[in-house]
Amino acid sequence: MLKVSGLLAAFWLQLFLCSSLGPVEGGKILVMPVDGSHWLSMKILVEELSQRGHEMVVLVPDTSILIQSSDTYTALSFKVPYTKAELYSSLKKLKERFTKAPQFSDLLENIMGLLSFTNMQVKGCEGLLYDKDLMQKLREKHFDLVLTDPFLPCGPIIAEAFSLPAVYFLRGLPCGLDLEATQCPSPPSYVPRFFVDNTDVMTFTQRVKNVFMAGFEKILCIILYSSFDELTSRYLEKDISFRDILGHAAIWLNRYDFTFEFPRPVMPNMVRIGGINCAKKKPLPAELQEFVEGSGDDGFIVFTLGSFVSELPESKAREFFEAFRQIPQRRDNVLHMVVRGVAESLNMYDLTSEKLLEKVRKVLNDKSYREKITELSQIHRDRPIEPLDLAVFWTEFVMRHGGAEHLRPAAHQLNWVQYHSLDVFGFLLFVLVVVVFIIIKTCKFCFRKCFRRTQKKKKE
Amino acid sequence: MLKVSGLLAAFWLQLFLCSSLGPVEGGKILVMPVDGSHWLSMKILVEELSQRGHEMVVLVPDTSILIQSSDTYTALSFKVPYTKAELYSSLKKLKERFTKAPQFSDLLENIMGLLSFTNMQVKGCEGLLYDKDLMQKLREKHFDLVLTDPFLPCGPIIAEAFSLPAVYFLRGLPCGLDLEATQCPSPPSYVPRFFVDNTDVMTFTQRVKNVFMAGFEKILCIILYSSFDELTSRYLEKDISFRDILGHAAIWLNRYDFTFEFPRPVMPNMVRIGGINCAKKKPLPAELQEFVEGSGDDGFIVFTLGSFVSELPESKAREFFEAFRQIPQRRDNVLHMVVRGVAESLNMYDLTSEKLLEKVRKVLNDKSYREKITELSQIHRDRPIEPLDLAVFWTEFVMRHGGAEHLRPAAHQLNWVQYHSLDVFGFLLFVLVVVVFIIIKTCKFCFRKCFRRTQKKKKE
Repeated sequence: MLKVSGLLAAFWLQLFLCSSLGPVEGGKILVMPVDGSHWLSMKILVEELSQRGHEMVVLVPDTSILIQSSDTYTALSFKVPYTKAELYSSLKKLKERFTKAPQFSDLLENIMGLLSFTNMQVKGCEGLLYDKDLMQKLREKHFDLVLTDPFLPCGPIIAEAFSLPAVYFLRGLPCGLDLEATQCPSPPSYVPRFFVDNTDVMTFTQRVKNVFMAGFEKILCIILYSSFDELTSRYLEKDISFRDILGHAAIWLNRYDFTFEFPRPVMPNMVRIGGINCAKKKPLPAELQEFVEGSGDDGFIVFTLGSFVSELPESKAREFFEAFRQIPQRRDNVLHMVVRGVAESLNMYDLTSEKLLEKVRKVLNDKSYREKITELSQIHRDRPIEPLDLAVFWTEFVMRHGGAEHLRPAAHQLNWVQYHSLDVFGFLLFVLVVVVFIIIKTCKFCFRKCFRRTQKKKKE
Repeated sequence: MLKVSGLLAAFWLQLFLCSSLGPVEGGKILVMPVDGSHWLSMKILVEELSQRGHEMVVLVPDTSILIQSSDTYTALSFKVPYTKAELYSSLKKLKERFTKAPQFSDLLENIMGLLSFTNMQVKGCEGLLYDKDLMQKLREKHFDLVLTDPFLPCGPIIAEAFSLPAVYFLRGLPCGLDLEATQCPSPPSYVPRFFVDNTDVMTFTQRVKNVFMAGFEKILCIILYSSFDELTSRYLEKDISFRDILGHAAIWLNRYDFTFEFPRPVMPNMVRIGGINCAKKKPLPAELQEFVEGSGDDGFIVFTLGSFVSELPESKAREFFEAFRQIPQRRDNVLHMVVRGVAESLNMYDLTSEKLLEKVRKVLNDKSYREKITELSQIHRDRPIEPLDLAVFWTEFVMRHGGAEHLRPAAHQLNWVQYHSLDVFGFLLFVLVVVVFIIIKTCKFCFRKCFRRTQKKKKE
């Protein structure tokens, strides 16, 4: 059993391990983004990779809202089987469903609404995947890597179809599919689930709700991703689910850090790049700069409604905002901030100017908010390497080594029962029951023998 | 339920989050190392921190083997209640126990041997902790941080007693106590346990053995750390275990990376600094350099037996080696290397020069070993930041912010039953049983009523 350690192992190890690597050569990267605010963050990485000499090809739906052509990357447009008007109409419907204060009875209707919206997006993916000419053109480009946002299935499916390593760029996926796909443990006893308004510290009742929601999420996952699964297996012509192909990703670049996230287990191939948006070092526009400088001792309030507002006409902005603000991951942010004592939250459905003013005054006048956000901000900024550099490093790493196999846990080879050792526990329980059964039978047998003998003797 | 996200949350956020931090001022760091090879790695970090202007005070037992006084740090010696001769004698006994090929029947004896050795080390800790003058002197120094190797309990206990944040420097702890203390999940279905010679891919039988060993580890932990627990609660005068105080550590600097480790979950406050030993950039001694240059096309073999050999007289080296090579974490290294196809292992107990030669020839002549180690070496060296810089960063981070509370999972507030949601499942099961019971009773009642009526009608 005991082995001679360090004896024969790795003669060259010492020599090889302690010198440095050369720079990465220019690679070819296929980018499949998700439109809207998702793109605004990814664009920063795409532009940086382009500046570092990589050829970037970005796939853009012809109904694109925010993805535009650029000098830094090649934008390849693909047709989707709906018009821009139909997209907006679908968004409007989604909005109408969500503007009412949600009742539990509306849950099914809301899910159906969300489903119809994502199904439309999946149809967009189909438009791309079944465009044979475009796909052939892409295949002939011999890319080194697919950089994609797995919020929609097109990118992961293309990476799988082209047998290319994939780097995912995301905040998180609805109903925790990213955690499932990376085999990342997420104990419901302290990792809060969506919709239940829990923090990481829960009462017994809250934990019951959380465990319930964790189970419900599994069902929701099946419903929500059914069209993803169908497209995945149909296009790849094998019995494989969307979750399965997500599990093949080399690196997950996650746009969060634990300053504003409840600490929980992570996997070695999950890289936190929260704060990547701060990479922009552009000066303020002149009129804003003037406004800031002129604000005096009272300071000023940054009133922000999300990424869409500044770049869309007001009517459109309103529609987008009202639809997208419902997405759970966004919705969730505020609670983290409230728990850390740096924010107050307001309910959208009974918002009045009085309530708003009261909260604004509270946040402005109570020093604790300012002190705590200063502290959190210092922690958030205090990192060994800038998130953009980290994202670039891992993208290039995957190109240099054709993946990141050494970070892939063997858990991917196990099914749910095996992963949780339920078969082992079942077997051990069976053995235990058999042993106990035999012992009891033997005891009974011996007892009877002895007892009969005693009775016989007595009778005699 | 739905909240207005980004509405009132963090007015200053945007402004605060996107600027940079100043350098850290010189801090005062108390270092409690573990003697032997453990110190050789930690010394690199201690010297680097000293060069960055921090005041380093290193506590050294008066029987020290490798820890010497230096210009870069202040070495404070403390008395231990045993002589150097007694220490060597204890090591010799340990060696004698382990030089025989281990039988399962020897397990208890071996554990007792290890226990008697660690208990001696714990006595050494007591010598330090109950030296009132020295402890008072240390307390008055007002350190900012304790940097320690938690292989022995003195460092963690001092950090707790002085209410100082602690940074741990280690490879891992026997019987996985580090994973327990950090609340890091470690599923026995694919995370191999010690002593069972499993890799991360296991057959059903191997998984049964692994689950068994995972359970046995818990018992082993209790035995192995009983003297640690006793000293911890006695010295701190409260009902607290060694594991509990380990859980208070701010950052765990782990001397491994996943190039040579089976990928598994990690926690946010675990920082991998594997390869920190490569930081030494000293040139080879002249005679070695000459030997290397003169080795010609055949190259040369680095035959290494561990860190003790080069710095001890041969007889002592032999003793130390034979004792220390048994430590499971070391023992474990080879299997990882064999699995990755870069090493061959030999059994110590039936080692012959023929067998050794055969394996050496195999490793030398089969190109695959060289190719694979080259690949692994490139992966190991390819990192966004040097491990020494990372270790320095996180040590200074803890000083800047007085800890790393934002990385501490709420799991620390849960007991074992709560963590695994067993109380929730128990409650849900109880509810289910009650509901089923009520349904059955109701059905029976209704059935009887109906049945009776039918019978009555029939009779009528």
